[in-house]
Amino acid sequence: MPFSTSFVPEIRFGENLHETIGAAAKAFGGKTAALVIDGFLAQSGLAERVVAQLTSEGVEARVFSDFSGEPKIAHVRKATDTVSGADVVIGIGGGSALDIAKIAACCAASGEDAMHYALAANPLPKNPLKKIMVPTTAGTGSETSATNIFAGPEGKKLWIWGAETKADLVLLDPTLTATLPATLTAWCGMDAFIHAFEAATNRNAHAGGKVYAHEALRLLTGALETAVKEPNNMEARGKVLLGSCCAGIAIDNCGTAVAHNISHAMAGLAPVHHGLATALGFEATLAWLVEADTADLNAAARACGLANAAALPGFVSALMDRCGIVRALPKSFEAVDAEALVAEMKAPENQPMRRSTIREIGDGDIARFAVSIMSLPKAA
Amino acid sequence: MPFSTSFVPEIRFGENLHETIGAAAKAFGGKTAALVIDGFLAQSGLAERVVAQLTSEGVEARVFSDFSGEPKIAHVRKATDTVSGADVVIGIGGGSALDIAKIAACCAASGEDAMHYALAANPLPKNPLKKIMVPTTAGTGSETSATNIFAGPEGKKLWIWGAETKADLVLLDPTLTATLPATLTAWCGMDAFIHAFEAATNRNAHAGGKVYAHEALRLLTGALETAVKEPNNMEARGKVLLGSCCAGIAIDNCGTAVAHNISHAMAGLAPVHHGLATALGFEATLAWLVEADTADLNAAARACGLANAAALPGFVSALMDRCGIVRALPKSFEAVDAEALVAEMKAPENQPMRRSTIREIGDGDIARFAVSIMSLPKAA
Repeated sequence: MPFSTSFVPEIRFGENLHETIGAAAKAFGGKTAALVIDGFLAQSGLAERVVAQLTSEGVEARVFSDFSGEPKIAHVRKATDTVSGADVVIGIGGGSALDIAKIAACCAASGEDAMHYALAANPLPKNPLKKIMVPTTAGTGSETSATNIFAGPEGKKLWIWGAETKADLVLLDPTLTATLPATLTAWCGMDAFIHAFEAATNRNAHAGGKVYAHEALRLLTGALETAVKEPNNMEARGKVLLGSCCAGIAIDNCGTAVAHNISHAMAGLAPVHHGLATALGFEATLAWLVEADTADLNAAARACGLANAAALPGFVSALMDRCGIVRALPKSFEAVDAEALVAEMKAPENQPMRRSTIREIGDGDIARFAVSIMSLPKAA
Repeated sequence: MPFSTSFVPEIRFGENLHETIGAAAKAFGGKTAALVIDGFLAQSGLAERVVAQLTSEGVEARVFSDFSGEPKIAHVRKATDTVSGADVVIGIGGGSALDIAKIAACCAASGEDAMHYALAANPLPKNPLKKIMVPTTAGTGSETSATNIFAGPEGKKLWIWGAETKADLVLLDPTLTATLPATLTAWCGMDAFIHAFEAATNRNAHAGGKVYAHEALRLLTGALETAVKEPNNMEARGKVLLGSCCAGIAIDNCGTAVAHNISHAMAGLAPVHHGLATALGFEATLAWLVEADTADLNAAARACGLANAAALPGFVSALMDRCGIVRALPKSFEAVDAEALVAEMKAPENQPMRRSTIREIGDGDIARFAVSIMSLPKAA
């Protein structure tokens, strides 16, 4: 089967690598570097430390950290203002910080607004600013992907996609993930696991993507539980961070499937953590999915150390148990019913993830999955 | 353990992908493309077909194919003359063609002679010409590596190393490898296998490189024998080609070890195919090597489907048997003795591969390995 894999940026991995961010920006020939960093991380002193590194390298530093939660167009625009005129953009944080940084690096290069590029309306600029991405959660894989999500002027989830948004350099520093609470470690880790699983088993799966997806499954299977239970276990944190990065490369090439159809649909209805929503959607559909019993499903199972695909549902539920994932929706879902979820799962923007799923998803399946999700307790 | 992995270029894989070379060159904004292609491939009509593609895309085409065997400085200089003034360089062939093309793309950009960059004497130009690499053998991994080998003015093997020499786009077309004779398929395939094995198990091995090395071992273990015995089996040819490409990424990041110390030493004494020499060096040292019994050696064994490292020597010898590899040296080695091989194995330029080996190689080991190699029949 023919395939193509997009370029993979240079990746550096190591404890305390965040101490080298200034030098890395300087090495790109940066005279001015703009930092896009999560607000709470900035407050922790990390932004100041990176600014000090940049200053000592003779690089002028700017900081944008005025955002939180899912990225909105207003955040992207303010970030672009800060970034404009810089040579290097440094994203530090979760998927939101990285997505904002990557988009701003393109918009600042062309002078165009992010909406100019949303939903592939126009081609991205060929020479965006240099981008250094430093994830502080292990889940989204934004550091190695070409997909960037933000909410448009009317609150609708939009995306900007293209190799031009990809990082030039990724710094993976497990010490930056050590303060992530157990719940977020588990939710983000399951998100990464499901990225790898769906990329390795959906209709777009191919040998090039599976190189990364299977390695991610091996790394996450072996280390996620330990990272949740022993937050300062740097070996486990490192494996989860590298696994998440590999999973990001896998979805960058092969995309996702039904679990992400459900989690994106849920996000359209009420606020919910993407990793939790995806894990719930995955568990609700996996027993149905593995009935397809494809070679890819069995290969993914073996990458998890299992004999075959039939063993996956039990394995995944047990892993979620051991990682302490409570099967419950946020209270905000009290006002939502299964019918609303069905409608979102059928919305045009969520159809690619329905179509890419290896089993055909009938309307009856959607109704059943929606009921299963919405019958969860509302308490998380 | 900290590590870094160099960028991986965009890779496209598929049968008959060579029909898209012209379009790919055009997509890079090329007005003039220079083809560096093995002489015998050019004579087969492939050069003409690619030139026709380029012409129909409105891209001016030039061809350099006046070389054969291991690349010499004269080849590199003539290639640079042809390439100068072009926007895109297209390398088609075995490792020699690709190495010449990659070096010429740098020299043509700066106007400097290749000797200016040999052995890292000077930094490479930051903006080399765009490079499209199309391997027609499955072994060297040059399409994804930053190492380029050629013989200097005095015949000494020299190298030019740097990310600037790496491809921007790799096209993997298994149909181009279908005419490779069984002997070369086996020799090149074992070279790739050993690249992956040494990268995954030497002192520089790391988690980032093992992603590629282990996948290469899995792919090559599963498909090499079939590719040798069924030359038109495109599935097997494809797996070997992708495995070789992954192995190239692995050595690009982690380098090689003792088998390559021996094969480079042999190359300094008399003409010998690099893949054969490496396979002979590997078989002569593997039983000794696996006594180290490291976690990496055992993980590499598992990637080959084996229980543990102790099973590797028997497995590799049986694989070489099934691939029809005759354990013999070229007749040109009749005038060479073990002492000469010892001296070459101890030569300064071969010490990095001695030092990177996971077991310390004593002088007694070197003497023993050299005797073992030189006692092979001279008949290949």
